[in-house]
Amino acid sequence: MPVSGFPELLPAQRAVELIVLDRLRRVFELHGFASLETPAAESLDQLLRKGEIDKEVYVLRRLHADDVDSDSGLGLHYDLTVPFARFVLEHAGHLEFPFRRYQIQKVWRGERPQEGRYREFTQADIDVVARDDLPFHHDVEIAQVMAEALGALDFLPPLRLQVNNRRLIEGFYRGVGAPDPGAVMRVIDKLDKVPAEAVAVQLVDDAALDERQAGLCLQLAEITSDDSSFVARVRELGVEHELLDRGLDELAAVLDGCSAIDRSRVAVSADLRIARGLDYYTGTVFETRMTGFESLGSICSGGRYDSLASDGRTTYPGVGISLGVTRLLMPLFQRGALTATRPVPSAVLVALPDEDSRPRSNTIAQALRARNIAAEVAVSAQKYGKQIRYAQRRGIPYVWFPGVADGDGDNVRDIRSGEQAEADVASWTPPHGDLTPQVITKEDNAQNS
Amino acid sequence: MPVSGFPELLPAQRAVELIVLDRLRRVFELHGFASLETPAAESLDQLLRKGEIDKEVYVLRRLHADDVDSDSGLGLHYDLTVPFARFVLEHAGHLEFPFRRYQIQKVWRGERPQEGRYREFTQADIDVVARDDLPFHHDVEIAQVMAEALGALDFLPPLRLQVNNRRLIEGFYRGVGAPDPGAVMRVIDKLDKVPAEAVAVQLVDDAALDERQAGLCLQLAEITSDDSSFVARVRELGVEHELLDRGLDELAAVLDGCSAIDRSRVAVSADLRIARGLDYYTGTVFETRMTGFESLGSICSGGRYDSLASDGRTTYPGVGISLGVTRLLMPLFQRGALTATRPVPSAVLVALPDEDSRPRSNTIAQALRARNIAAEVAVSAQKYGKQIRYAQRRGIPYVWFPGVADGDGDNVRDIRSGEQAEADVASWTPPHGDLTPQVITKEDNAQNS
Repeated sequence: MPVSGFPELLPAQRAVELIVLDRLRRVFELHGFASLETPAAESLDQLLRKGEIDKEVYVLRRLHADDVDSDSGLGLHYDLTVPFARFVLEHAGHLEFPFRRYQIQKVWRGERPQEGRYREFTQADIDVVARDDLPFHHDVEIAQVMAEALGALDFLPPLRLQVNNRRLIEGFYRGVGAPDPGAVMRVIDKLDKVPAEAVAVQLVDDAALDERQAGLCLQLAEITSDDSSFVARVRELGVEHELLDRGLDELAAVLDGCSAIDRSRVAVSADLRIARGLDYYTGTVFETRMTGFESLGSICSGGRYDSLASDGRTTYPGVGISLGVTRLLMPLFQRGALTATRPVPSAVLVALPDEDSRPRSNTIAQALRARNIAAEVAVSAQKYGKQIRYAQRRGIPYVWFPGVADGDGDNVRDIRSGEQAEADVASWTPPHGDLTPQVITKEDNAQNS
Repeated sequence: MPVSGFPELLPAQRAVELIVLDRLRRVFELHGFASLETPAAESLDQLLRKGEIDKEVYVLRRLHADDVDSDSGLGLHYDLTVPFARFVLEHAGHLEFPFRRYQIQKVWRGERPQEGRYREFTQADIDVVARDDLPFHHDVEIAQVMAEALGALDFLPPLRLQVNNRRLIEGFYRGVGAPDPGAVMRVIDKLDKVPAEAVAVQLVDDAALDERQAGLCLQLAEITSDDSSFVARVRELGVEHELLDRGLDELAAVLDGCSAIDRSRVAVSADLRIARGLDYYTGTVFETRMTGFESLGSICSGGRYDSLASDGRTTYPGVGISLGVTRLLMPLFQRGALTATRPVPSAVLVALPDEDSRPRSNTIAQALRARNIAAEVAVSAQKYGKQIRYAQRRGIPYVWFPGVADGDGDNVRDIRSGEQAEADVASWTPPHGDLTPQVITKEDNAQNS
């Protein structure tokens, strides 16, 4: 039995996941982000520094450890930020700053499984970290790179990358006269789940605002725009604070920096209700929602830390964003919305005229592979009809028939159309889309059937 | 602190590992092997079925589980064969047989760390599994594919893939008249560590052979050859058994099938002392040794199982081989024998004439990326000498200087040679070897310095 909360993909689904990971990696690397992996296990001291989610940590114990007290003091990482911060402190002397890294790994949380929540899931994180100072333009860079990476997943439902800025909202709350801006933030953060009227009441009761102040904070939270026009709308509310000014400038710079992104795939918007209340962000914050899957919440979140890591002497500010790959893909798999054109890499099945011809069929397959065409040889010299059905069951699009009589050329058949033609192993090339498995969506499927 | 036994790679080392994994994957996929991953955790029932290594299993426990008895019943997988066997049984209805898969994942063992032994390490496995019957030619295929994959790692010290056949040795021992062929196998397996004279004594004492029988078994174990000439040498020993005949035929077929492999990189040999005593192989067995690193033992092992998995009604025979990626690479990293040309993907640093030019430098970088050239933009508009040193510290080979005055063209400098030339972002292309990080060996390093 598969273990509850530990998703397991069938080969065609895994083919989709590989395409997703390859495209993410490609965009990250083109932007100069270096790959990094950290061990699955960290010391519990490291893992529990943050505190809020300690109960979700899986602790490791050797099966035949002498007694309970001999636990290893190790736990599985539950995100990639805590291990990265530890990595930066530990290897600072071997790194050049600012340091760009991407990290695509599984993480584990001992949560109760439910849709969109898994005990094992893959995250794809990008971060830029510096020593002492990290220029603001890296916030823009992180938004651009992740928007471009998400845009490369052109088979997903439309996505919306929502950006806000903690300085902006904190400055606004201070300008309004809120005695505890953090309390306002935590209440506003509930707007996704709680009606605005109830939030207004809580702002008065829990954040000590008067009704006018609460009204202004709610008006701020309602502002969204796809460009920097949000600035004028905030100004219209008549609130003044220097932190607000800086936050508005920063958020406008992120929006301007993303103006070249293809908005039909990934809409980038300023969304002034986004706060990421429980995380320690200090400036830019990101969330991402997938159209039609809003109940999943944010599938890609992050922001700016003024102190991603610190050893007491040196502080390492950082900005990053983390994509929940499993969280994104599993609901699509479960709805049958995504699959691959085939579950095997093979583009060609080389047929076997008879068992003695195996070396020759192997030679043909090897010649195709040398030209980057994945190929396998038939398992046995059954009738050709059976060999073709073998290819069909695997979704292999082409069957190669070696010439049998002296002087006969080889033939290749597209088993989808039935078209067959003479072919030379040194030059025949399938259309690019047939070379490797491709992602198909439910709509593609519907059109083809 | 990094946790003992959990290796952590710096960016340049990780770049080497990625190149290794990419090349392995490429060969596996060209041969039609589909990617698969299984969860890190399996039920303890599954993990403990084999028995011998149960004490190495890491058990998972939620940190705030109510008491010790509420352990999850889950442990981390310690190899990729046990999870694959479980996967095959569980998903048999969704798979087409014979089923070829590759699986590249980390595995965990709670062993005492020592050189060549890690608590977390990456394995790369290929297996072919069938329902009821798996034709022998798949044994040849597995040897060919892994030899080709190892050969693609052309920066490694020379490797030797050693092949034997359990039927051959069991048939020989039976033909000699051994009362317990398994006992002979277990004693012969010690030849790597124990002198031949001592093994001869043990064959008499522990395997109940007489001296003539023991001598014949030792003579068999000494036979090696790079082609099928071993058959004649076995025949000269005058032992007859039908199982021996079948084993000789099979082993000769594997050697013949590997005759096209480039022997300068991966020598394939019949080696009649290889037994893999503790594993449940039934025919072909594989081990692999790396020249100069013999003390590591076998870095790539496997063989044929007549029953990889069984649900009582259906039996799934399989043949596979498992490469210890971490075990292979870590000793080379520790000796400084392998590194990458640079720790970052960027081939180009786009310089910044002044801070106002950032959008223009971003546009240049984006145009390079669109042509598959990884690029990053300078962090700040320092003097060009400082920007060049920034690139040098990262090993980025090219710095791109945007033209400043109207009508000025852009320039690109190879900062290794100092050569600089006008360049057009729409057509300039670096040499292929500069496009992505490459592996360099200690010898390359010595030649260049």
